[in-house]
Amino acid sequence: MTSPGRFTDTGLFVCFEGGEGGGKSTQSRLLKDWLESEGHRVLLTFEPGDTAVGKEVRRIVLSPQTGELSNRTEVLLYAADKAEHVDTVVLPALERGEVVITDRYVDSALAYQGAGRVEDLSGVEAVQRWATRDLRPHLTVLLDVEPAAGLGRFEERDRIEGESLEFHQRVRQGFLDLAGRDPGHYLVIDARLPIDEIHELIRARVVGLLGQVTS
Amino acid sequence: MTSPGRFTDTGLFVCFEGGEGGGKSTQSRLLKDWLESEGHRVLLTFEPGDTAVGKEVRRIVLSPQTGELSNRTEVLLYAADKAEHVDTVVLPALERGEVVITDRYVDSALAYQGAGRVEDLSGVEAVQRWATRDLRPHLTVLLDVEPAAGLGRFEERDRIEGESLEFHQRVRQGFLDLAGRDPGHYLVIDARLPIDEIHELIRARVVGLLGQVTS
Repeated sequence: MTSPGRFTDTGLFVCFEGGEGGGKSTQSRLLKDWLESEGHRVLLTFEPGDTAVGKEVRRIVLSPQTGELSNRTEVLLYAADKAEHVDTVVLPALERGEVVITDRYVDSALAYQGAGRVEDLSGVEAVQRWATRDLRPHLTVLLDVEPAAGLGRFEERDRIEGESLEFHQRVRQGFLDLAGRDPGHYLVIDARLPIDEIHELIRARVVGLLGQVTS
Repeated sequence: MTSPGRFTDTGLFVCFEGGEGGGKSTQSRLLKDWLESEGHRVLLTFEPGDTAVGKEVRRIVLSPQTGELSNRTEVLLYAADKAEHVDTVVLPALERGEVVITDRYVDSALAYQGAGRVEDLSGVEAVQRWATRDLRPHLTVLLDVEPAAGLGRFEERDRIEGESLEFHQRVRQGFLDLAGRDPGHYLVIDARLPIDEIHELIRARVVGLLGQVTS
């Protein structure tokens, strides 16, 4: 994939990525609260699942009852969720000039289904890019976390969290490789840092972007 | 798309395609009965829906409650159904040397979501080919039917059958264009012919293929 992607020129699109337990939901909420206190309109959303179709897809994919699912099937179900999410949630808000913060986006699909499952990565990426009209975040915050540390925070695990440590190590490397391909649009942070310190690093980077792109 | 596709060298893969009301299910059943009477093992299947995931997808896409669905979402949901169907139903039976007859396959996705909805056709095709590992039928029987005639056979219409006549005319042309691209793997039949006559035409073509490819 050589396409540099498509970026909107209204709104600001910020994405949080990384393995389980890295604090994505905490940090995305802190960022939202701060942006709102600064007077910005913010939409906080997530994948998979923040549409009616997405909830159905999430239910199918994450349920332990689903059992063995073909890798391609899983990739395509997640991609359907992304298509619906981009078309009905993300793009309309960006066009209104809002800040859209999403907890997971394309990188999660690439890291989990591509790197994680050793599935044909260029095929997986082509499908995800088509699904999302190649829309890219202005900034992806990668909260990098050692798989063993991150997984330790959960008592119960769903189908994906129950995968082997080796799987989660490949996923982590998948995220880091994506950041390495396009460093100008990434902020990689060690998730072991204190919550406040991480939030400061994110704010510092987002401040610089707000002037550039929000309508 | 320039790929000639992939054909298995065991089993025989026959697909029925065409618009609503062309007699696909009648003809696929007649072909199955005849093949079995000749001593062949036959698997009769259909898309969308002949897997657990497929049933869920079919429920989401066809329900009038789903409302407006992004075109890409619909393409990807159908593709997920196809991926599961090929990997868990079609390919295993072909590998066992069986005759697999499917009521609808990739052409339906291309005709309905591509030609029918004026969606970016090469993107739709790339997704469908990836979903199905580019597996092609040895023979696709296209039961060509005038949309107005075909639709008249139904009392109740689901979300797709309720589309405009113009939509169904574009779908019909989409099917014919696909047959025109690869005539060696297609048999196009006027669906207004008598049922027995259509069955004879299909048998005559299938007889020639049985010797070549079934293990």
